[in-house]
Amino acid sequence: MAEFDVEVVFTVALKAVKDAGEIIKEAFYKKKAVLTKSCAVDLVTETDQAVEKMLIGRIKENFPNHMFIGEESVAAGEKCDLTDEPTWIVDPVDGTMNFVHSFPHSCISLAVLYHKDIHIGIIYNPILDQMFTAKLGQGAFLNDKPIRASEETELGKSLVIAEFGTNRDLQKMESVLKNITALMNKVHGLRAMGSAALNMASVASGGADCYFEYGIHVWDIAAGTLIVREAGGVCIDTEGGPLDLMSRRMICASSEKLALQIIPLLTQLKLERD
Amino acid sequence: MAEFDVEVVFTVALKAVKDAGEIIKEAFYKKKAVLTKSCAVDLVTETDQAVEKMLIGRIKENFPNHMFIGEESVAAGEKCDLTDEPTWIVDPVDGTMNFVHSFPHSCISLAVLYHKDIHIGIIYNPILDQMFTAKLGQGAFLNDKPIRASEETELGKSLVIAEFGTNRDLQKMESVLKNITALMNKVHGLRAMGSAALNMASVASGGADCYFEYGIHVWDIAAGTLIVREAGGVCIDTEGGPLDLMSRRMICASSEKLALQIIPLLTQLKLERD
Repeated sequence: MAEFDVEVVFTVALKAVKDAGEIIKEAFYKKKAVLTKSCAVDLVTETDQAVEKMLIGRIKENFPNHMFIGEESVAAGEKCDLTDEPTWIVDPVDGTMNFVHSFPHSCISLAVLYHKDIHIGIIYNPILDQMFTAKLGQGAFLNDKPIRASEETELGKSLVIAEFGTNRDLQKMESVLKNITALMNKVHGLRAMGSAALNMASVASGGADCYFEYGIHVWDIAAGTLIVREAGGVCIDTEGGPLDLMSRRMICASSEKLALQIIPLLTQLKLERD
Repeated sequence: MAEFDVEVVFTVALKAVKDAGEIIKEAFYKKKAVLTKSCAVDLVTETDQAVEKMLIGRIKENFPNHMFIGEESVAAGEKCDLTDEPTWIVDPVDGTMNFVHSFPHSCISLAVLYHKDIHIGIIYNPILDQMFTAKLGQGAFLNDKPIRASEETELGKSLVIAEFGTNRDLQKMESVLKNITALMNKVHGLRAMGSAALNMASVASGGADCYFEYGIHVWDIAAGTLIVREAGGVCIDTEGGPLDLMSRRMICASSEKLALQIIPLLTQLKLERD
């Protein structure tokens, strides 16, 4: 088993994320070469690939025994195996659709797990210069200032993030519409910003009270899960019960009380695991 | 008829908006005293009222003959009459729901019209420090840098903003859902950020390709209309044809070609005029 010093790993991870931010910033307002993956709205750019490659290099150089799970590596055929070894889980550009459109809600999402516990979570929007960080048991921060989830517990006063998703599967789209319809006249407001990681950061920093999604992947939510929890919020399964990071569904909220008011309203969707 | 020197008026307006931004910033992360207006999700805070009062004072002091239309004055029973006189049209806090939740997408929206033409448009998000400005015929700017609407003309590659709205009227909610359903599998992505003025600023600065809404008011869109047009985009009626600022509906896009692909997909909604 590899050694794991959270402070040492955090320092390397933070520097790597900042450098990745420079790559994204440099490319942000330029024309992007866009490729599609599973369907016409599942996109990847040279920047996603360049950032992931840089991060892999940085890990190999500093922690040759650490494992890696990254969106673009998995898309290219790598396995998505989570073991007890120190494992970096990375979405090089979360909100790729936003990035492609120069819509300023994209970020790098990076988590480091050890014995399957999330020890480090970093979400960085380099365009708006928002750096969200958390270490297990040490609180959550936005640009080094402590953040807290909201104190909202009432469904009727909650601001809820519900994404439309990048999917053209009919069953998925129907479930999205059902959930929006079920919530629309019961909450304070619904929002959709297009980045799972930044949505979680928004719940962690108290701007939104709840966010749920079906179809997300472990790299979209691993960092956000720690950041939300360290900010006093909860991340659980969309049917209640403990979150399974590989199950491709998640609800996070300022409190379990609030999450449990939303769960009965949701149409559940089963998805192939990561 | 009052005199109208656009440069003089712009200088006063910009200073007033910056000062209003300080009031919003000061209140942003504190608990807000919230009152409801037409329904449980139509909100107003002391800050909306304080900002509007300050702006009215600033206009009276500098341009005693100028007219004023403001969201909170109209809510309090003032008339919403647009004449040929120089007229300031103000939403003191656009995205009040976001403001109440400390969700960082709120702004001041201020337009100055003369002979019913929009000569000045200013939209300022003081939390993210984004100042969007335009003067008629002189281009649009974000923090003094020129901005342009995107070059996207294809519906299938467009990022479209479609708000859920703050309304619990059944007919309104149904039309929102119909429009979302009609667009969902035809566009690149849908977004909802909760501020009409910032949505228009987003189209003007190229991040989103289109935004439409039914139920908005003249103070939500007057500044954004000029900013979008000066950035090379279009603002028209949701059935096509010229925009009527008081008609409570609007579609703006990077190009008329794109707007005209979205219009046939929309379920039209007639609303009481401003």
